[in-house]
Order: sequence, then structure tokens, then C-alpha cells
Amino acid sequence: MADRKLRVHIENTRKKAGIHQITRQLWRAACARHRALARRLEVSEGWDGDILEDALVDAVAVIGVPGHREKLKSRAPRLKWLHAMSAGVDGFQPFDWLPRGVTFTNNSGAHGVKAEQYMGMAYNLLNSRMAEITANQQHRRWQAVYTPNIIGKTAVIVGLGDLGGAAAQAAKKLGIRVIGVRRSTQKHRDADRVVSYRQLERVLPQADFVVLAAPLTAETRGMLGAKQLDLLKPAAGVINIGRGPLLDTRALEKRLRSGRLGGAVLDVVDPEPLPEHHSLWHAPNLIITPHVSCDDGERYIDISLDLWFENLALFLSGKTLKHRVNPKLGY
Amino acid sequence: MADRKLRVHIENTRKKAGIHQITRQLWRAACARHRALARRLEVSEGWDGDILEDALVDAVAVIGVPGHREKLKSRAPRLKWLHAMSAGVDGFQPFDWLPRGVTFTNNSGAHGVKAEQYMGMAYNLLNSRMAEITANQQHRRWQAVYTPNIIGKTAVIVGLGDLGGAAAQAAKKLGIRVIGVRRSTQKHRDADRVVSYRQLERVLPQADFVVLAAPLTAETRGMLGAKQLDLLKPAAGVINIGRGPLLDTRALEKRLRSGRLGGAVLDVVDPEPLPEHHSLWHAPNLIITPHVSCDDGERYIDISLDLWFENLALFLSGKTLKHRVNPKLGY
Repeated sequence: MADRKLRVHIENTRKKAGIHQITRQLWRAACARHRALARRLEVSEGWDGDILEDALVDAVAVIGVPGHREKLKSRAPRLKWLHAMSAGVDGFQPFDWLPRGVTFTNNSGAHGVKAEQYMGMAYNLLNSRMAEITANQQHRRWQAVYTPNIIGKTAVIVGLGDLGGAAAQAAKKLGIRVIGVRRSTQKHRDADRVVSYRQLERVLPQADFVVLAAPLTAETRGMLGAKQLDLLKPAAGVINIGRGPLLDTRALEKRLRSGRLGGAVLDVVDPEPLPEHHSLWHAPNLIITPHVSCDDGERYIDISLDLWFENLALFLSGKTLKHRVNPKLGY
Repeated sequence: MADRKLRVHIENTRKKAGIHQITRQLWRAACARHRALARRLEVSEGWDGDILEDALVDAVAVIGVPGHREKLKSRAPRLKWLHAMSAGVDGFQPFDWLPRGVTFTNNSGAHGVKAEQYMGMAYNLLNSRMAEITANQQHRRWQAVYTPNIIGKTAVIVGLGDLGGAAAQAAKKLGIRVIGVRRSTQKHRDADRVVSYRQLERVLPQADFVVLAAPLTAETRGMLGAKQLDLLKPAAGVINIGRGPLLDTRALEKRLRSGRLGGAVLDVVDPEPLPEHHSLWHAPNLIITPHVSCDDGERYIDISLDLWFENLALFLSGKTLKHRVNPKLGY
């Protein structure tokens, strides 16, 4: 019987925050939620490569991308499915290490619920000028800052995947009009209009909020630079929940300091982590959150493993997996 | 014809913020929106009492509560309807100056839309520990603060009028369970459960968020004091959008400083404005906004005058006005 089981290796790293580690307890809890599927698995668990080479010899599926990926084909001859525990896979580009015939999936789908809550807050942080109010509190200044109703404002949302879709949903719930910007121009339930990346500059002048929620690829890197920022209304606000380098940090900082922009809320920055000496920390009208917007602090692994088991059912029945990374597109 | 018109006096004060002043332009715009009703009015506009005594002699309706209210009966013998441009009328207590036969209305209804947006933000500010994250930004510290999903949390909302109703609506949209606390136990569309003021202490232990949105009266003053705060979970957050003295500020500050509470978001404080030297400014896990949560910074007067004209239609047809202050209840 044993050899009919699917060999799965879980590769963890202690460098990640605790909420991102697949502990034995969390794995067992996931198996209990997916008992019939879990019975078909034979699982090894490794930390920072301790048993990696042995495990790779007969692993068919691996959860967690190994730190060293050279010669994976010969090290893992039976490998069919590699799963990244993050949604963004820009850290693994270029994908020349990925053996042909191995399906690479990312953790898209695990971030939408928290992302929607964060975005509902972020639009209001900008609209109610909370960075200014917080600075006033810091300086012990009671000074009324009256702000308009948010209903009827416009958000330009770049990327309409798990994160961008959540940003669109949060916007619609607040009565904000949504212009989605994506690689294709495929419609989206919560977007009033969808345009392609190439049309970004045409829609930016309409934005009260610009939300960056695209994957980081060669195509999207630096897509909101000085030129694009200068197309925005002076009161517009920028939100980045995607990846720091989607945005030209220096260009943004310059415009915040000159008052050319209304404000910004950044959950991701460039460089990241932001060094202590970096001038961005104290740019005016800016709120920085430390890359925590979209991760459920209590259930990140539970949610992620449920998505993995959903894909496992597809895998075992020979169907096409969800959340496949397209190496050519880079995400 | 002229003497058939209703004499209305508008009493403004330059002490109030600009967004709270009924300028001639805004009044005319309101009249244009309510043309048929406006035609039946003869209106005087005064500032800080400049023409008040003359106007009171034959005014039937007054918008804006005069600063000096002594002997109003003899100064304004024809007065039937006095309208306050604020929702809270605690500043005019006790109501011994109000002549019998004069209907006193407040500006309830003008604050719900902005209040809902503020509350949607405030719950998330507490749940995502934004005060801590903002302090980290201030100190140039990149430190992940992971926080749980907000869905399924519980809000205890004290007061279910215009503000409390908005707080309940914002909560339900976020998937937060709502326990309403009000003088009556009348049901509310967005409350899963409603209890009376007397039952407050019984429901406080369930709260992840406590929202104060009640009018300030003899009954509600200090209703969230040391004893009540100590009934809360250690991670619970307190939000005050009502009036500062509903809450024992010193008791709250002490518990924030000792880590006995999760945090607080205060739009109103006691004393107000908060003096520069007050220690509350820098209490940990606290966000202070300067009494701006519920006022539309662009359309406060438009919204308020639309509500007044709605009441005017009732007044002219001899019907009972909305948003009447009950002098015995104090709001």
C-alpha cells in the first residue's frame, strides 16, 4: 500500500515569521479537515534543507520552494508539482530552474479576505487625511481636518487578481467607482470598467486613488513612475499592496514632500525591509505598514493548506491545477 | 402677501468652523433645491447676534441656537420652532430657557454617512493595531504586526441613533456581530441584539469593540468608567464618536498605559479641545481624531438644510416635526 501513496515533502524555513510556518500541529489539523485526501499522502517535513536532498529523491509534490534550486531535475526526478507558500513569486524569477513537466503553483487565494479589510481602511485613511491627523496627534495639536464623503470617488486598481479583486470589492462597498487595469481586458465583477496596462496613463487623471495590486514582473516593474504620478490629480492618493518596485519610491517621496500628491499608504516598499536611515519613513502624508496587509495573523497556514488540498483533489484526479504560475508571464 | 410668509431667522456664529456656517450662497442653493417651500419664507440672516433682537421680535422659526437664551419668551413672542445645527444638544442643557410651546429640533440625520465611513475605518484601525504600526513608523522600525481577520468579532454599540446606527451598519458590512445598547430596547435593523443601558455591564465582556454613540445626558455621563472598562477583554478596543464625557478619560488612559486594553480610537475627548499639555495625546495604542468623524467637509450645510426643509414641509402642514429634542430626556 505504502508505495501507492503520494510522496509529499513540506519544506519550511525558520527565517519566515511564525505565522508562515507549517508546523506539525497545523499540518495535522489540515489533514483532519481533509481526511480522505490526507490518507493518500506520505509526508516528510523539513526545515531549512535539513532533510531536503533525501526527500527530493522520491517526492512527487513539494510544498515550499527550496532555497537552492539548481539542478532540480536530477535532484528531484519524480517531482510533478511544486507549490509556493507566497502569492508573489517574483523572488524566484527567472524561472530557468523550473524543470519542464513540473507544475508550479502559488498561494493566490489566501490573501483576499484580509486584503479587502485593509483596503476598506486604506481608502478611508487617505480620504480622511489620517496621516496628517496622526502627525497632529504626535505634535499635540487639536486641529479640525474636515474631509469629504468618499462615495463617488474613483479608484484605478492595477491588477485584478486575488489582491486587486479584494481592492475592487472594498471600493464598491464604499461607493467608490472602480477602473480596473490588467494585462488582459477581461471584465471583473467589481470593476465598472477594465482597461489594459497600456491604457494606464489614460485613466490615471481620473483617479482619486491608485491601487497597485499587480504581480511584479518585467512588464510591471516601475509602472507607476514619475511620469505616471504627474498625471494624477494633486489630491489623489497612492496605495501599494503588491510589491515595492511596482512604484518608483523616490519619485513618490519627492511628490509627497512637495505637496504634489494627496498622500500614500504603502504596505510594500522598495527597498524592503525599509532601512532605518531611509528618508521615506518620515515623508508627509504617508502611512507605512510593514507588509502585513493581506496575511491572516491567526489562520494564514490553515487557509493556505485548505487551498493546497483543494488543488490536491484536482492533482489526484489528473485535472489542471488552479493558481498555476506561467513562467513566460513571470507570475 | 408678505405678512403671510413665514418669518425665519438664521443665526450664525463666526466662532464655528467654515463648514458649519450657513453662508448666503449655501442658503440660496438650498432654496433653489426646495423652491416651492422657500417661496413661503421671509428670511433674515444674522452673525453673532448682530441683528438678533430685531429679528426675534417676529421670527416664527430660528435656525441656530442663540448664544444668549435668557427670557426668550418675551424676546421672541412668536417663536414656534428653534433648530440646532448640531446633533448633540448637551451644550444647551439644562433646557430651562426653552419656552413652552417652542419645538426644539436638532441636526440628527446629517452625520450618518460620514460616521459610517469613519466607523468602517475605526474598527479596522483597532483590529490591525494601526496605532502600534504608526508608532513604529515614527521610530523607523520595520516590524511585522500580524493581525486576525475581523469577521466574527463583536461590537457593543451604545446608542443606536444617527451615529450608532451608522456604527452598526459599518460593523455588519465588515461581518462584525452587533449588540446594541439603548435607552429603550427597541430593535434595530443592523443590531443582532439590543439591550437596555442597565444591561450594559452584562454585555461588555463579549465586546471586541465598544462604541460610544449616545447623546450626553445625566443618564449617560461617565457610563464607561473604570468599573465598566475592567469588564472588557484585555484585547478589546474602545471607540468614542459621541461625546467625550461618556467615557472616563483618565480611567481609559490608565488602562492603555498599563496594557490592560487593546487600544482606543477617540473622535471626542474630555476635555475638548484637548489641551497641548494633556498626557492623553501620547497614550499608547490610541488614535485621536479632532471631532471630525461625522461631518461632511464639503456638504455639511447642504445636507443639514435639506433636512431642515424636510421638517419645514411638516411644519407648514401642521404635522409633528422630526428630530425633536425631548427636554426631559435631555436630547
